[in-house]
Amino acid sequence: MKIEGKKYRTIWYEKDVVKIIDQTKLPHQFIIKDLKTVKDAVNAIKIMEVRGAPLIGGTAAYGIALAVKENNDPDFIKESSEDLIQSRPTAINLKWAVDRMLKKLSTIKSDKTLNAALKEAKEICDEDEKFCENIGLNGLKIIEEIYKKKKNTVNILTHCNAGWLATINWGTATSPIYHAHKKGIPVHVWVDETRPRNQGANLTSYELNEEEIPNTIIADNTGGILMQRGEVDMCIVGTDRTLSNGDVCNKIGTYLKALAAHDNNVPFYVALPSSTIDWDIKDAKDIPIEERNSEELTHIEGIDENNQIKKILIYPKKSRVMNLAFDVTPAKFVTGLITEKGVCEASSEGLKTLFK
Amino acid sequence: MKIEGKKYRTIWYEKDVVKIIDQTKLPHQFIIKDLKTVKDAVNAIKIMEVRGAPLIGGTAAYGIALAVKENNDPDFIKESSEDLIQSRPTAINLKWAVDRMLKKLSTIKSDKTLNAALKEAKEICDEDEKFCENIGLNGLKIIEEIYKKKKNTVNILTHCNAGWLATINWGTATSPIYHAHKKGIPVHVWVDETRPRNQGANLTSYELNEEEIPNTIIADNTGGILMQRGEVDMCIVGTDRTLSNGDVCNKIGTYLKALAAHDNNVPFYVALPSSTIDWDIKDAKDIPIEERNSEELTHIEGIDENNQIKKILIYPKKSRVMNLAFDVTPAKFVTGLITEKGVCEASSEGLKTLFK
Repeated sequence: MKIEGKKYRTIWYEKDVVKIIDQTKLPHQFIIKDLKTVKDAVNAIKIMEVRGAPLIGGTAAYGIALAVKENNDPDFIKESSEDLIQSRPTAINLKWAVDRMLKKLSTIKSDKTLNAALKEAKEICDEDEKFCENIGLNGLKIIEEIYKKKKNTVNILTHCNAGWLATINWGTATSPIYHAHKKGIPVHVWVDETRPRNQGANLTSYELNEEEIPNTIIADNTGGILMQRGEVDMCIVGTDRTLSNGDVCNKIGTYLKALAAHDNNVPFYVALPSSTIDWDIKDAKDIPIEERNSEELTHIEGIDENNQIKKILIYPKKSRVMNLAFDVTPAKFVTGLITEKGVCEASSEGLKTLFK
Repeated sequence: MKIEGKKYRTIWYEKDVVKIIDQTKLPHQFIIKDLKTVKDAVNAIKIMEVRGAPLIGGTAAYGIALAVKENNDPDFIKESSEDLIQSRPTAINLKWAVDRMLKKLSTIKSDKTLNAALKEAKEICDEDEKFCENIGLNGLKIIEEIYKKKKNTVNILTHCNAGWLATINWGTATSPIYHAHKKGIPVHVWVDETRPRNQGANLTSYELNEEEIPNTIIADNTGGILMQRGEVDMCIVGTDRTLSNGDVCNKIGTYLKALAAHDNNVPFYVALPSSTIDWDIKDAKDIPIEERNSEELTHIEGIDENNQIKKILIYPKKSRVMNLAFDVTPAKFVTGLITEKGVCEASSEGLKTLFK
């Protein structure tokens, strides 16, 4: 998608390094950063220069390629894989991408592993882009249906950033929106600010602005009354891990919006590539929920009156803070899952109709 | 209650001026401000140097007294009353306090109105303090019941600031908490940050810290998963306007917490003095919901590394923003109303058992 009119993907390999857009600097600065070692990749995931389950997967895949490039020793690769998997606990794509890379490498002669690793990482990214495009085409049908009935701008609420910046391209939750916009359907997006880290404001609103899609940032607290007032036609969010029973683990606060949607008969969709499905964990209680640094809440970055980037403390100095990054929305509050293979019910039966 | 060990009320008359604590400066600065004219009072309410339905009522009462002091002409008093009532649309106490002041003044000879006005304003404030104390004693019984069963720290979630800073003293939602703490019941408060304006973090956590009550600030998005995990024993919030059918208008986001409480069988209480009940409006749709300046979301104030207060822009420059200040929680999601007269069901029948 576009930034200042120029097309980008979120990650690519160029002149012996992996390039990423440093998402901790958005929206105030657009900086392309080099990852030269697997340690750089681990760090980029940890401090969230890259984030979003699919992009974390892509970065981990390239991280393995960087490890191969540095030191093609099985122990080093194994250690690097573990570092990558440990870099963030909740998103399932991370492990999925690393496992896929290792499986591929195990079939390749050692003098050809770098090329094979780079090729596989690119394939993982290309596949994600294709999956996201298909999610868009499948979700587009839902938006079209609403538009046919309403004959007026379709208002879509989203939480956090499941946009193209969270994937390789198109996004998950945003892909149907981009496709609707491309097709000339008038859409307007309510963008939850998404505390802490404000990825809704900083990333989703930013990328929608760059694609000239009308959007309005609201506090995370606001979605409820908008739904009560009939100002939301549908919700679409992403997911960091979807269980085979349809329970959806996503950015903290998703569950509250799903409850409000349920209470007001607003359809609540979750968009995901199948790489985000965890076929193993059966009980949402077993999903590791990341607790992040409290500084993500106590401090915030922005630009001051001199256009300088400043980080300030916004809480009382004495206060204690707790910062959980994800919550789980029970399947019963999810209207449907929008995947690359089609739309299904958020249930084992639903998922079985699309995936074996 | 105490700030840095010293006892305060939120508003008082001293040496011919009305004194308030400037709440826009908390938690980074503690500043006592003088209101010398009714215009000062209108402005203090408008820009939220004072806020919280009961304190807005108290300030409006003193505002009328200041008007009388300035120019005891019926037209000026009438105009000033209207300015005060218009200063914020949602809180009902504003109109209630102004009407009570005018009614009192209409019975007084014009040479004695200033004394009478000051006396009535103080009485409104004293009464609010007494009401809040009784709310505390009535709510205390609920906390005691939970403690008897649990035999461990009672975890209470609150949203925004319905603390003593929102009233004259004690607070509404916090009063049962202060009373429980005084009685030696171990309590811990989950404080919703409460975007925008962060009154949970800036005011509730601040005042609980000053009273040495354990509390933890969380993002507004976090309450849901805490309830799913059984880490919230009850919710108590305040209200800016309660309808006679039990519907509760309060700070934006309250509704989302009520939904989560309902979904997880967590009792959800609303604490209020009877001055907050609107006996006229029958349908929540008729409550005027204030839309405030978008700068409350786009900008935020805090302290930088040099301990200087800084205001920074945190959103993309191109983004559009919408800032609704309140929402309405339907009575069916409210476990009970804690009033100065006792605890009742959130319904006409419930309210009738306590108020004629």
